[in-house]
Amino acid sequence: MIIIMEPGATPEEQQQVMARLEREGFKVHLSRGVERVIIGAIGDKTRLKAETLAAMPGVEKVVPVLHPYKLAGRDFHPEDTIVPVRDLLVGGRRVQVIAGPCAVESREQLLETAMAVREAGATMLRGGAFKPRSSPYTFQGLALKGLEYLAEAREVTGLPVVTEITDPSLIKEVAEVADVLQIGSRNMQNFALLQAVGRVQKPVLLKRGLSATIEEWLLAAEYILAEGNNKVILCERGIRTFETYTRNTLDLSAVPAVKHLSHLPILVDPSHGTGRRCMVAPMARAALAAGADGLLIEVHPNPQEALSDGPQSLTPKEFARLMEEIRPIITAVGREMGRLPV
Amino acid sequence: MIIIMEPGATPEEQQQVMARLEREGFKVHLSRGVERVIIGAIGDKTRLKAETLAAMPGVEKVVPVLHPYKLAGRDFHPEDTIVPVRDLLVGGRRVQVIAGPCAVESREQLLETAMAVREAGATMLRGGAFKPRSSPYTFQGLALKGLEYLAEAREVTGLPVVTEITDPSLIKEVAEVADVLQIGSRNMQNFALLQAVGRVQKPVLLKRGLSATIEEWLLAAEYILAEGNNKVILCERGIRTFETYTRNTLDLSAVPAVKHLSHLPILVDPSHGTGRRCMVAPMARAALAAGADGLLIEVHPNPQEALSDGPQSLTPKEFARLMEEIRPIITAVGREMGRLPV
Amino acid sequence: MIIIMEPGATPEEQQQVMARLEREGFKVHLSRGVERVIIGAIGDKTRLKAETLAAMPGVEKVVPVLHPYKLAGRDFHPEDTIVPVRDLLVGGRRVQVIAGPCAVESREQLLETAMAVREAGATMLRGGAFKPRSSPYTFQGLALKGLEYLAEAREVTGLPVVTEITDPSLIKEVAEVADVLQIGSRNMQNFALLQAVGRVQKPVLLKRGLSATIEEWLLAAEYILAEGNNKVILCERGIRTFETYTRNTLDLSAVPAVKHLSHLPILVDPSHGTGRRCMVAPMARAALAAGADGLLIEVHPNPQEALSDGPQSLTPKEFARLMEEIRPIITAVGREMGRLPV
Amino acid sequence: MIIIMEPGATPEEQQQVMARLEREGFKVHLSRGVERVIIGAIGDKTRLKAETLAAMPGVEKVVPVLHPYKLAGRDFHPEDTIVPVRDLLVGGRRVQVIAGPCAVESREQLLETAMAVREAGATMLRGGAFKPRSSPYTFQGLALKGLEYLAEAREVTGLPVVTEITDPSLIKEVAEVADVLQIGSRNMQNFALLQAVGRVQKPVLLKRGLSATIEEWLLAAEYILAEGNNKVILCERGIRTFETYTRNTLDLSAVPAVKHLSHLPILVDPSHGTGRRCMVAPMARAALAAGADGLLIEVHPNPQEALSDGPQSLTPKEFARLMEEIRPIITAVGREMGRLPV
Repeated sequence: MIIIMEPGATPEEQQQVMARLEREGFKVHLSRGVERVIIGAIGDKTRLKAETLAAMPGVEKVVPVLHPYKLAGRDFHPEDTIVPVRDLLVGGRRVQVIAGPCAVESREQLLETAMAVREAGATMLRGGAFKPRSSPYTFQGLALKGLEYLAEAREVTGLPVVTEITDPSLIKEVAEVADVLQIGSRNMQNFALLQAVGRVQKPVLLKRGLSATIEEWLLAAEYILAEGNNKVILCERGIRTFETYTRNTLDLSAVPAVKHLSHLPILVDPSHGTGRRCMVAPMARAALAAGADGLLIEVHPNPQEALSDGPQSLTPKEFARLMEEIRPIITAVGREMGRLPV
Repeated sequence: MIIIMEPGATPEEQQQVMARLEREGFKVHLSRGVERVIIGAIGDKTRLKAETLAAMPGVEKVVPVLHPYKLAGRDFHPEDTIVPVRDLLVGGRRVQVIAGPCAVESREQLLETAMAVREAGATMLRGGAFKPRSSPYTFQGLALKGLEYLAEAREVTGLPVVTEITDPSLIKEVAEVADVLQIGSRNMQNFALLQAVGRVQKPVLLKRGLSATIEEWLLAAEYILAEGNNKVILCERGIRTFETYTRNTLDLSAVPAVKHLSHLPILVDPSHGTGRRCMVAPMARAALAAGADGLLIEVHPNPQEALSDGPQSLTPKEFARLMEEIRPIITAVGREMGRLPV
Repeated sequence: MIIIMEPGATPEEQQQVMARLEREGFKVHLSRGVERVIIGAIGDKTRLKAETLAAMPGVEKVVPVLHPYKLAGRDFHPEDTIVPVRDLLVGGRRVQVIAGPCAVESREQLLETAMAVREAGATMLRGGAFKPRSSPYTFQGLALKGLEYLAEAREVTGLPVVTEITDPSLIKEVAEVADVLQIGSRNMQNFALLQAVGRVQKPVLLKRGLSATIEEWLLAAEYILAEGNNKVILCERGIRTFETYTRNTLDLSAVPAVKHLSHLPILVDPSHGTGRRCMVAPMARAALAAGADGLLIEVHPNPQEALSDGPQSLTPKEFARLMEEIRPIITAVGREMGRLPV
Repeated sequence: MIIIMEPGATPEEQQQVMARLEREGFKVHLSRGVERVIIGAIGDKTRLKAETLAAMPGVEKVVPVLHPYKLAGRDFHPEDTIVPVRDLLVGGRRVQVIAGPCAVESREQLLETAMAVREAGATMLRGGAFKPRSSPYTFQGLALKGLEYLAEAREVTGLPVVTEITDPSLIKEVAEVADVLQIGSRNMQNFALLQAVGRVQKPVLLKRGLSATIEEWLLAAEYILAEGNNKVILCERGIRTFETYTRNTLDLSAVPAVKHLSHLPILVDPSHGTGRRCMVAPMARAALAAGADGLLIEVHPNPQEALSDGPQSLTPKEFARLMEEIRPIITAVGREMGRLPV
């Protein structure tokens, strides 16, 4: 940790900072520059201390040297993590495509979509039974009934199921059905929920919050990892910026950034990330070219009847075309399309 | 609702949109411009439908005419809402100042702070027993023990207590002690939590999410109101922007904006909003000059020992000075400082 | 144009708005909804009028129906524009890679880089002679001397030259040497400069401003087009967001968005867009997969001695590797690598 | 300057960084932590070097210790700068209110407005003769004719004139009339223009760029100061965020931040900062409560006929009311309203 003192800091103030650091077991070193005094502190401490020091009189700025996440970072875990989901692997050589409707709306809608995306080459099924919606007046999901349909769809197609959990008290019911527990972007810092999914041994798909920095996102993963569940899959889904043409700004540079900082696999959701059907395919290609380990794609048999996210959902036919478009990209980056076991 | 068709939309596509609208009970009107066809639709519908229509072929854009919130908006509730908190009123002529430590750290720390802020003129006590923190390795609060200390501090000082709830399953324990239930900015769209606080008859302090638009914020309030709890107090606490000098950008223009759009009272938290002690007083003055109904201020007897948010906490002495500085502003805008009953 | 009146607007206010519109030659149509009155106006008017109407009493919101740009938009110019630069074409089937140093620092540095990027397959040379820098104390470019070196480098390598212009008064000197005039992101709304380059018949590379919406960017292009110069090439280079790990957030969704809204070609600059050498190659691949017509890449023979933008510059060897990595992507999207005439 | 090395940096890489620093005249100090090596460097260098070092192999991050601006910062110039404008002082005890139309539209409009704002207590007149507009099809100002009217309005009312300059080649014409040269937000990093106004001895009003950090803003001021003109007045006018209800987000926390970092006076423009007439007065009061040295207010005799910025312009009557509303706030913060000499 490095402490930069204010130009007018008194010798007493310097002394207090150094005494405090030494009291906490740090080795300290004072360096007197032309205009500023700098105090270096060596020791194994977390971020909070930076904050505490920043509150001391005479301190201008505290610069943490280490990343605040240990388990999610590459420093102590240099090799890539590969997360097994039933017979599939997320994060290895093979690219996995998770597809399905935003919300489970009915048995028929889900089964029809599941069979279509299976046919086109998707390797997992997504579908929300519990939907967090900005307005209390919009469709909130079929809840337990939705989970039932998801289980049936898996039965029929063999596709592992990815579904969102929104309330820690539902962990038992959702984990019973889901192969992957999804944490939505609005809940990325719902720490009670992160801890709940950290305590079950199920893979977790952790979406990036709308305005979360990469550091905060990895700290959210750290909450899950710290509870003992090391099967965390990250998913970039667009951040909030000033641009209004797209629903969000899909931040593809998060893919190489996360690959650099962390060992966890990362997927991209170009459906939520753009909010516009015509942009899903180009951004899906781009995500894979940037190095993403897979995609999350919204597909609906009849987008204009969808109870949520219609404008960004592909028809099964459009999805099949997208699968064809991404094949050469996957080859170009030296990877292979995921495959369900026969 | 207004539907703008793409320049190349076919007559069949127009027909489909109109048929769909009529099927749903809308009165429709088609208007043919030089370059675009526009369809107006009259009827009482919520936002989802806009989304559904936007998914139809040939549709360029759908413009909702009405605000998506009904209970939180002024349209049907023109007069200001005043929320009673024990013997105090939030939202009326009197300005309430809520002060206290970010986190309850010990019985002594809390009692000392409570007595000091009471002495300086605060009318409510804040203090977190459950702390949502970005990192799993930082202090997470004293939990139930913290609630106990808060109850004791109220006993001693007479100050009503404002404290955060982070998990719906804790509603009974927290509501038993709290006079105001606080929803933190990270949980502004934790809908399970919003519904939980909507079902108890306690005032709720709803902080704005870090990247929430004013519309989303009012929709979050709508979740609480829709459950039957109409005692909602809003609190602006800074939004996330590109500026890094301040911790967040305190959006004071939210004050007149909310006053225009909604009947709910609005407070401002200049401590979290700036993250810097030296900016708390000027922004507190500015918030009241902009028309805020009160303030939320972090005070700690010894900020450099604080377990969280030290750099933005005032000492009791600094807080007493701030109270003196805001008095003439409160008078200048024609209001009065809140007062505890004797 | 659609005018939504406030709930409390009086009949006189409606009348005034309608009278004003009719006076300006619009055909108007009033539509009375349950809670709002809406006035539709048909006529050929630009944005300003929307603003003017929004200032009238009783008006809640004005929604423009048409895009404010005519020449840059696809509505009246559906086919793609292809911009010729000497013997090359920007915007057609072939992908062009523009490479070179951020700043021209010396004759040797430029010639060495030019030959290296030519060898690796670049088809144009970039290099700044006039550098806009945030601080007045950093290297500002070699000015006229830099232009001279650029001309020599073109002579030697055959590569057309792209260089930035920062002051309208230099148009003659810069246009004499440059094959493509670059407008930097800080000058995207320097309208005097846009008009100056609009009056010469040279291709213009228009970078997106750091916080420019796509609409503002296309309006900046409109300034150039409106002066009679239709050779405009757009270039996405990252926008400013809250994320601090990368220098900017490269908004690749701007590529399909611009392709949808405009007929102009669009390149991507992953060097400025990320600010980190290790992210340049993945984002270059992603940009082409998203449909970009080419790339702008910073290359320096010795990045750690670079007078500007060292951290994001590739060495010639790294650049040669990037060229190999993008080849299969270019093939995958059905395009071909650009080639200089022999 | 502090250099943090990557965890895997080799001894050779450390050596190279240290050698480079020593070669440039720095005193260096190496500090070996548990997981990182840190190199401290003492010497008087500017930012560029940080960038150069960041490009060296093995370097993770470079932390500059000093602010990159010298002339604009408080470190070497602790006392407040007061800028004289004719017989007025900007930045001292008295608060100055600059008012007038966004654009000079006609002699009558300007004179009428000037007399009205003079009457209500404004101490300077604003009005644009050269208007930078997002679209080439909107009113661009009366140019030289506008300057003429401004001179006449000053003659009649005695109000000093503030007007924008957009092109360095017009410096002579504009400086002849203007008492204060305004640099608009779009031109905040138009360095040719900054240098041009730095070379004349006229006060400059420097608006903050739409997405400029406070550091970049002070560096823009540094460009002017470095040319020898020390009469710089800063003006906050709103930044670009995700919020769409307001035109921009007026960042009032910039007022105490600038007061802390710089000695230059700072004004606030709540008209552009909000874009909505009903928010101008509350944000004007808030700006002064936060410590601003004055205001910039748009006034138009007939806002619904304004050729630009109608929705945010006050009528003379509304302006007179605003002047009454700010008086008690000015008193509350211990200052006085500015006054023209009689």
